[in-house]
Amino acid sequence: MSRTTLSAPVPDWTDPDCPVARALDLVGDRWSLLIVRDAMDGVRSFTEFQRRTGIARNILTDRLCKLTARGLLVRRPAPSGRRQEYELTDVGRDLFTVILSLRQWGERHAFAPGEAHSALVDQHGTAVPKVTPTNADGLPLDVDTTRVRKIS
Amino acid sequence: MSRTTLSAPVPDWTDPDCPVARALDLVGDRWSLLIVRDAMDGVRSFTEFQRRTGIARNILTDRLCKLTARGLLVRRPAPSGRRQEYELTDVGRDLFTVILSLRQWGERHAFAPGEAHSALVDQHGTAVPKVTPTNADGLPLDVDTTRVRKIS
Repeated sequence: MSRTTLSAPVPDWTDPDCPVARALDLVGDRWSLLIVRDAMDGVRSFTEFQRRTGIARNILTDRLCKLTARGLLVRRPAPSGRRQEYELTDVGRDLFTVILSLRQWGERHAFAPGEAHSALVDQHGTAVPKVTPTNADGLPLDVDTTRVRKIS
Repeated sequence: MSRTTLSAPVPDWTDPDCPVARALDLVGDRWSLLIVRDAMDGVRSFTEFQRRTGIARNILTDRLCKLTARGLLVRRPAPSGRRQEYELTDVGRDLFTVILSLRQWGERHAFAPGEAHSALVDQHGTAVPKVTPTNADGLPLDVDTTRVRKIS
């Protein structure tokens, strides 16, 4: 986790002081996050990313290049030696909480009651509990109990 | 939290079984998530959203319409009665964990060591601790210790 994306080319930051905005500048588009989701599921090849997402080839090429340049993916020859494959770096793997939070929000608000969807399970096959942010005392936090402290 | 976005017009789902993909279809673009971020900070008016994000007016209009139609924002006349204002619904407020996770990933990977950034603090002014997903036994989870169970 010591590696930052700053050694790589970065966009002009939309809002340089805000970590949310910088994160969105780096990975805040639907295709990039779907590629990260699939890489977390073990997808490695261009063909498989394309099959799983249905993304156009030129957009997939662009997003794989950007995610690699920004330090979220590493590209290397596949064991067969004939193709390239892509694997998440520690920086990319660290998006786990973001992807999980999107999943849990989607489960709560983008499905009708009883409508079937895939589930994230732990090593024992048990559904992953709801992620709940807490303060240092373990009390749940939300929009009302937090505020942004600007750089003074 | 009982309200779902499904009563509103929804896009053709990219990957209907996957809650991550449905969430991204609904809110997975940089501007939508920046608008949600600002609404969490208390921004209500078109002018203030525009000032804070630097977003073009036509894109801001589009995103406010979509977020309202999809049940994340509610539009109502401002107390002055002359303008509209936008407020997060419970569905929109429930993106708190997503926005916080993006913030914390950005803090870890999009800033140089020592580079200043805004911080999220609790009621006592204390920085919000890192959000760590855990299983039912309280053990930390990550990409390696979870897997997606497809609909059978």
